[in-house]
Amino acid sequence: MEKLSEAFSHGGTQAVYTHKSIVNNCDMTFAIFTPPIIKNAPVLWYLSGLTCNHLNVMEKGEYRKKAAELGMVIICPDTSPRGVEVADEKENWQFGSGAGFYLDATNNPYNKNYNMYSYITIELPKIIEDNFDFNMSRQSIFGHSMGGHGALIMALRNPTKYKSCSAFAPIVEPTTASWSREAFKKYLGPNENEWSMYDSVSLVKKGYTFPEILIDQGQADSFLDEGLRPWLLEEACKDTPIKLELRMHPSYDHSYFFISSFMSDHLNWHKDRI
Amino acid sequence: MEKLSEAFSHGGTQAVYTHKSIVNNCDMTFAIFTPPIIKNAPVLWYLSGLTCNHLNVMEKGEYRKKAAELGMVIICPDTSPRGVEVADEKENWQFGSGAGFYLDATNNPYNKNYNMYSYITIELPKIIEDNFDFNMSRQSIFGHSMGGHGALIMALRNPTKYKSCSAFAPIVEPTTASWSREAFKKYLGPNENEWSMYDSVSLVKKGYTFPEILIDQGQADSFLDEGLRPWLLEEACKDTPIKLELRMHPSYDHSYFFISSFMSDHLNWHKDRI
Repeated sequence: MEKLSEAFSHGGTQAVYTHKSIVNNCDMTFAIFTPPIIKNAPVLWYLSGLTCNHLNVMEKGEYRKKAAELGMVIICPDTSPRGVEVADEKENWQFGSGAGFYLDATNNPYNKNYNMYSYITIELPKIIEDNFDFNMSRQSIFGHSMGGHGALIMALRNPTKYKSCSAFAPIVEPTTASWSREAFKKYLGPNENEWSMYDSVSLVKKGYTFPEILIDQGQADSFLDEGLRPWLLEEACKDTPIKLELRMHPSYDHSYFFISSFMSDHLNWHKDRI
Repeated sequence: MEKLSEAFSHGGTQAVYTHKSIVNNCDMTFAIFTPPIIKNAPVLWYLSGLTCNHLNVMEKGEYRKKAAELGMVIICPDTSPRGVEVADEKENWQFGSGAGFYLDATNNPYNKNYNMYSYITIELPKIIEDNFDFNMSRQSIFGHSMGGHGALIMALRNPTKYKSCSAFAPIVEPTTASWSREAFKKYLGPNENEWSMYDSVSLVKKGYTFPEILIDQGQADSFLDEGLRPWLLEEACKDTPIKLELRMHPSYDHSYFFISSFMSDHLNWHKDRI
């Protein structure tokens, strides 16, 4: 693990590291904020959306003040494998670099590198555990858009690993959304039955469960009706043990101006559950 | 005035506008955050540092949450004139675009465009007054690095225009700092006597005054000893009516990770005085 940058902020430290990933077969980079007291701190994972890397939320997410106050570690991984040896479609923002969709690809050649599900749930937590003195029995997860999708599927499939899960404007049913279907086809093949383990609505319908989920969604979000549709998850959660709180906010769009507006709310919410 | 972007955030609105500047002879751009209640809101000017434009602090400054809570307008102008018809030295980050040093140039050809002092103190406030319903009798000013220098000289020279002044890591004596001397020579000519009206330490020594000044400075700031030297202003303010509070912070550097750490403090401080 190599430290690329480090700066003192809000009484804690914002750093960026790179390391060799075995599951993704390339170097991966992540941002990490450590609060003033590091030992035994709980860990909150933030998964970013399409086109982002680890830097966007680090610069625009406004999480440090509250995380320092609550004593939480915030880890912001990159959104996909990257590099000259990673298969990619540079002109396509919905596939390849910046668009890993938090799944483990099964199709050639993408299965060599695009294994973000295993990277986030298994490999990176192990690396963090080996290098820092946090309390890894206290982990929670949240994210934005494609990263909200990632947080939802990881929580539903690992309900004892994560203490809490929330999302900003998540893609709740990527198997039917136009901006993710083509990527799913390339990563997982044309058999749509193979896709359901990476779709939060499908997982809930199969009986996967999680105690509580908080979702914030802007009503002026231009992706709301076509790509996000949080009401599909709200509908799926009815008559299940999952307590889903969906908060719709007039005037807010899909940007970091929206995310940062509700960041403190989400950190407080996780702190009560982690 | 043309609106380039607008997003709802923290209950207020973050927008970016462009307009023709008469004093700078080019189009100028600024970011503006308006709180939930706009009418009669006080106006706090934020001046950015070298290499920045209006976007850096808008994205990384973390001012919106507190500004919305306190009901303050935050205006973040660009740091220099820009454009194909503006004399520039593209490779020199200490002169030309991104390095206007908040002065009115007297030397040819720079006096045609580089008039940031008049732009910030006269032209832009008039444009704001004509286009928004704020309370322009309640204005305050702050900034970072070169922008801290700008805030200090503008407050000292206009003590009734601004109700309060603060700075993050300001350049307090640009007439003797290596990174500003060459720019001052080009903008104002070789006669150093002409430079003192754009130097906060010189202004205080001449008897210019202001009730209170708050300065935050990181001790891990790599520009501290060579370029910033806030102790020079502290020394100059001794035995004057100016109440200068200089807070030195271990571990903090010169970046937005430092600025954002103390942003809420500064907004609270201005709110009590504006």
